[in-house]
Amino acid sequence: MATTTRTVAEVCAQARDASRVLATLPSGARDAALHAMADALEQRSAEILEANARDMEAGRESGLNAALLDRLQLDEGRLAGIAGDVRTIAALPDPVGETVEGHRLPNGLDVRRVRVPLGVVAVVYEARPNVTIDCSALCLKSGNAIVLRGSSTAAHSNSVLARVAQEAVVRTGLPEGSISIVAGGDRDELRQLATQDGLVDLVIPRGGEGLKAALKEHATVPVMYAAAGNCHVYVDASADLDDAVAIAVNAKVQRPGVCNAAETLLVHADATAEFLPRALGELRESGVELRVDGRARLLAGDLADSLAEASEEDWETEYLALILAVKVVDSVDEAIEHVNRYSSGHSEAIVTGSTDAAQAFTGGVDAASVYVNASTRFTDGGVFGMGAEIGNSTQKLHARGPIGIRELTTFKYVIEGSGQVRE
Amino acid sequence: MATTTRTVAEVCAQARDASRVLATLPSGARDAALHAMADALEQRSAEILEANARDMEAGRESGLNAALLDRLQLDEGRLAGIAGDVRTIAALPDPVGETVEGHRLPNGLDVRRVRVPLGVVAVVYEARPNVTIDCSALCLKSGNAIVLRGSSTAAHSNSVLARVAQEAVVRTGLPEGSISIVAGGDRDELRQLATQDGLVDLVIPRGGEGLKAALKEHATVPVMYAAAGNCHVYVDASADLDDAVAIAVNAKVQRPGVCNAAETLLVHADATAEFLPRALGELRESGVELRVDGRARLLAGDLADSLAEASEEDWETEYLALILAVKVVDSVDEAIEHVNRYSSGHSEAIVTGSTDAAQAFTGGVDAASVYVNASTRFTDGGVFGMGAEIGNSTQKLHARGPIGIRELTTFKYVIEGSGQVRE
Repeated sequence: MATTTRTVAEVCAQARDASRVLATLPSGARDAALHAMADALEQRSAEILEANARDMEAGRESGLNAALLDRLQLDEGRLAGIAGDVRTIAALPDPVGETVEGHRLPNGLDVRRVRVPLGVVAVVYEARPNVTIDCSALCLKSGNAIVLRGSSTAAHSNSVLARVAQEAVVRTGLPEGSISIVAGGDRDELRQLATQDGLVDLVIPRGGEGLKAALKEHATVPVMYAAAGNCHVYVDASADLDDAVAIAVNAKVQRPGVCNAAETLLVHADATAEFLPRALGELRESGVELRVDGRARLLAGDLADSLAEASEEDWETEYLALILAVKVVDSVDEAIEHVNRYSSGHSEAIVTGSTDAAQAFTGGVDAASVYVNASTRFTDGGVFGMGAEIGNSTQKLHARGPIGIRELTTFKYVIEGSGQVRE
Repeated sequence: MATTTRTVAEVCAQARDASRVLATLPSGARDAALHAMADALEQRSAEILEANARDMEAGRESGLNAALLDRLQLDEGRLAGIAGDVRTIAALPDPVGETVEGHRLPNGLDVRRVRVPLGVVAVVYEARPNVTIDCSALCLKSGNAIVLRGSSTAAHSNSVLARVAQEAVVRTGLPEGSISIVAGGDRDELRQLATQDGLVDLVIPRGGEGLKAALKEHATVPVMYAAAGNCHVYVDASADLDDAVAIAVNAKVQRPGVCNAAETLLVHADATAEFLPRALGELRESGVELRVDGRARLLAGDLADSLAEASEEDWETEYLALILAVKVVDSVDEAIEHVNRYSSGHSEAIVTGSTDAAQAFTGGVDAASVYVNASTRFTDGGVFGMGAEIGNSTQKLHARGPIGIRELTTFKYVIEGSGQVRE
């Protein structure tokens, strides 16, 4: 763990060696290591909290705002929560070794596609120190070595957390290099990490657009981006209005700061008269600022005068706040077209009583998760039964939607024969 | 198809629009389009061969070598072969719409993971004009729009082939923009194509290292690289010697110029005495130049004096020719270590009678295809039952091994509910 004296390439080379061993360990060995990691977090809490206090003090001195300080802060309760999450991950079914499919060829060769770890996963992240442990647990569970690179704001916390985790797993027999951390805070280090072709198999950024842009520019190893969520709820002509109101309100209000919250409400013209006054009223009561197109305003009843006018920018914006854009459309096709034009491809919902409209929407909308008669807020690895997630992918290759432990694996073809040669 | 007057971005935007329609067409419509394409290739052969003759003439004038001219040339027989391949692709099962998995959540939501097209696939390639049609057929079969960018050497052939194909599929009702071609030959055009974020979902290079390097430098959209094959055959202590000799010879000799041919033979020290003289003899008789380490030379019997000495560079080299490096190792672990150090991760084989050694090798070797007691030469989409392949991936994300029509798809989660909202 003496990373200050090692280059990024050296850290990654040791992680590569560790990954060769991890790939062949049985699940029991990896799960035991995760339990040791969880126990160590609790046993060594004083050390961890002392390091965290130093980050908190530096954060306060440098004028970090209250929200960022809250994300940075650890206490006994939060540490116990993190340890509990590690035990939850340990209890998940092992994704490694599963035969995904297999068949016998006419020449007698048995071809099996078998799930295996990716190898070395690098995670680059911002201020939350819990990411250090969450991602380490997810990577070890899926048989990968992890190289961490956090932000300088949480440097003391991350460094101690990674050391505690690494020491715990090594004591159970996992190789040195299973969990490594590079110092963090230096852009050149990020560039180095993202160009370790042959040593790093995947980089996962967990942070804002600046971090992603830096990776887009420099990375030569594969990167799995978790993009923003500009999500829509479309209320069709035949929608059950109670469901429609409940879903629109839930998708916007239940937790507005997350990527699967709705940002735009689309309403079929035939549903507006009954739906709009009621829905807009409930949204307003929940504290939602509404930005509507001209047609929606005409049907908003008493509220009309208090509504802002939606602009092109509103259709494009992921507010992550109690703000909702509202637009009236004349058909499910127009709704699909609007969604495909502005959506970030995260989570999209239709509320409808028509199977034709439902099929048109699920077939036509190009997004990771498409809902019929349910809130967009369900897109989550935990909810989907994947146990835990490392992020949510809006890209199409490899992983789309929640990125769980299965998405941290690849596969190999294992072909068994009895001397076959090619004619 | 008037591509000369359109920018790359305009071509890709039209392809994006076409992809929205293609994604919702039933398989019958796409298969009918493929049959129309195949028919048109035969019906309009005169036009195609005339364009090809112009490329051939220009190629001869510019001093293209015989091998490249052969790859460039079309005739009635080759065209019929290409048309036949299109019909074969049409007959494959549709990969689109398959429910990969599905389950009901405790809250009653039905979550299904459904296979869908990627959207717009760009294929950049070098002199073979048949790629124009093969890739168009594979992309349409998997519900994708394709944007082609061939080399200037085959510009006339590619342009006419793409036009013939596009006109044929549009006549059956597929959208304009299903098949597009950009002029080719201009590096800036490649850069533009590889940076159409939001319009192009995937770029597939089919060409040499220069093309891949250019994409590595410029691409911001995902790229699926088909890398080289530095493949090994390892003959274990307990190998059946007849099988071992047959497999070593087949993997090297049967078609040395392809990526799944073996480049290095590793031999367990305990197998050398019986195996090496016989294997090296047969390899020599097949015209193979042998480059051996010191221990192999000692055991090569009469051949010893005529063998070249293997250097570090030999372990790293994909010869793609009748040359084989030979090395003696002391254990399956040493073989695995050598393979993981030098392999390009394509196809690796062990010949052994030991289940322990087989398991160690298949578990420990990090490659797309790992063989037990069979030649490396079987790695092929057609052989593996995938119908056809667009290349062979040695990367680990999304597609590993043969890239067939399934690998040209992604999936979406379709979630059906009855009004569920998140608590």
